[in-house]
Amino acid sequence: MNIVIVGLGNIGGSFALSLKENADEHTVYAIDVDESTLQHAEREGIIHQGFTEPEEILPHADLIIFAVYPLILKTLVEKYIPLLKENVILTDVTGVKRSIIGQIEPLLPESADFVFGHPMAGRENRGLKYASGEVFKGANYLFTLTDSNKDSNIELLTSLVKRMGFKNVSSVTPEFHDDVIGFTSQLAHVIALSLINSDDVQRNTKQYTGDSYRDLTRITNINENLWPELFIMNKDYLLDHIDRFKSQMDLLKDAIETEDVDTMKEMMIEARRRYHDLHNLELPDSE
Amino acid sequence: MNIVIVGLGNIGGSFALSLKENADEHTVYAIDVDESTLQHAEREGIIHQGFTEPEEILPHADLIIFAVYPLILKTLVEKYIPLLKENVILTDVTGVKRSIIGQIEPLLPESADFVFGHPMAGRENRGLKYASGEVFKGANYLFTLTDSNKDSNIELLTSLVKRMGFKNVSSVTPEFHDDVIGFTSQLAHVIALSLINSDDVQRNTKQYTGDSYRDLTRITNINENLWPELFIMNKDYLLDHIDRFKSQMDLLKDAIETEDVDTMKEMMIEARRRYHDLHNLELPDSE
Repeated sequence: MNIVIVGLGNIGGSFALSLKENADEHTVYAIDVDESTLQHAEREGIIHQGFTEPEEILPHADLIIFAVYPLILKTLVEKYIPLLKENVILTDVTGVKRSIIGQIEPLLPESADFVFGHPMAGRENRGLKYASGEVFKGANYLFTLTDSNKDSNIELLTSLVKRMGFKNVSSVTPEFHDDVIGFTSQLAHVIALSLINSDDVQRNTKQYTGDSYRDLTRITNINENLWPELFIMNKDYLLDHIDRFKSQMDLLKDAIETEDVDTMKEMMIEARRRYHDLHNLELPDSE
Repeated sequence: MNIVIVGLGNIGGSFALSLKENADEHTVYAIDVDESTLQHAEREGIIHQGFTEPEEILPHADLIIFAVYPLILKTLVEKYIPLLKENVILTDVTGVKRSIIGQIEPLLPESADFVFGHPMAGRENRGLKYASGEVFKGANYLFTLTDSNKDSNIELLTSLVKRMGFKNVSSVTPEFHDDVIGFTSQLAHVIALSLINSDDVQRNTKQYTGDSYRDLTRITNINENLWPELFIMNKDYLLDHIDRFKSQMDLLKDAIETEDVDTMKEMMIEARRRYHDLHNLELPDSE
């Protein structure tokens, strides 16, 4: 199969590296605006060949993986449509789905099957130099299906990403995806940003931090050109999750204010139960 | 120097292991209620000898490290006072200071010097089996000084914990300690608890998580017998930090609601600046 990765940054590069390592019967090409990135990737054997323009390679692509910002995706798909091979499979990696699918679906020709996807793996740093096939190992992958997706193509992609090391590969509706991602990823980013920005910078806090603070703020090395649009495209679900989080926080705050130890203990026991479930651990009988 | 560690759990055990590895000219003893823990520690060579009662060993102690819950500390100190050697140094590891110091200081005889301390290193799991000298490497340590502390004793402890691998060892006031810990540790725990408890348990969220959610909830494997008292003893500072955090979160929430991309970008750029400062990283010029 000829696979074309569009956008050879952190995620696109990680796809290329992982495909090379785990599925090397495929030939992997890349399209990127940055010629030196492509040359580097060719020299390192990460891709077979790189292109700054799509005309030459796209008509030969059996699978196209768009690893680009959501705002660029529609423009690229529009530009690429005249060049697509019959029965091509397309997929993406964007973190919100309803809005993206709504933009892209109406553009697609009958014979092209766009299976929208979301690999849930690290992307704190930008650029090919941070790419690594390792980050996909054990990670979760979500495909958000539409009525036009062919079962055989969903199966092909599921089996491919499993070989790349993804563990839980789920097919869900775009609505479910945006709801759950609004919680596990977007709310987490809203919290981390709010935490680090509520620090008193006069204090030189870093001398007094433990692992907790570093863990909770790791994702604040955030890409400000990507995340505002992700938040906006999913704002209904995200605002809902923020409100639910704030309600929980207010319950705990009240318990602290009134020195209500029993309620705090209950909340902590419930949290520990959820922690153990999240990590598939047995809850110890007593400690 | 004869060092007696009181309480051979995760933190006490980590002290013993780290002292053995980094300062083995000292003889390390332990007092613990659990005889089998002491026997295990003796067999493994983690301590020289263990005691379930203090009478035999305490009169020989030059340094006593209390690695016990804050609520037990006062009772133990009261019980141990008649047994203390002249010029003994005492220290603790509790995560709040004003309240503890207020309870303990009035009890102390003239010749005993209690230098209150707080090693800021992992303690998610309870018990000796999770102890490790490694967790101290590169971590921060805070000593909260009182008027009666002797400079020579502060220096002795500072040099000892630096040899154990702690990196930033600061001497601060109890007020400053409780303020900054209310932010870096306690607020972080309040946030993590509120996040995991605001999850919809029907959803089986763990299939759809990425690193963000796992990072932000790691500290929810929390000890419900310890943390409510920590929160209550520091509730003035903690409630203040919760309010500051909520204000930041509301600013970001408003920006999402009004689709104010510029404000969101500013907040993210500020957060990235702070992230780089926290980790002593150079902020890239452009990406």
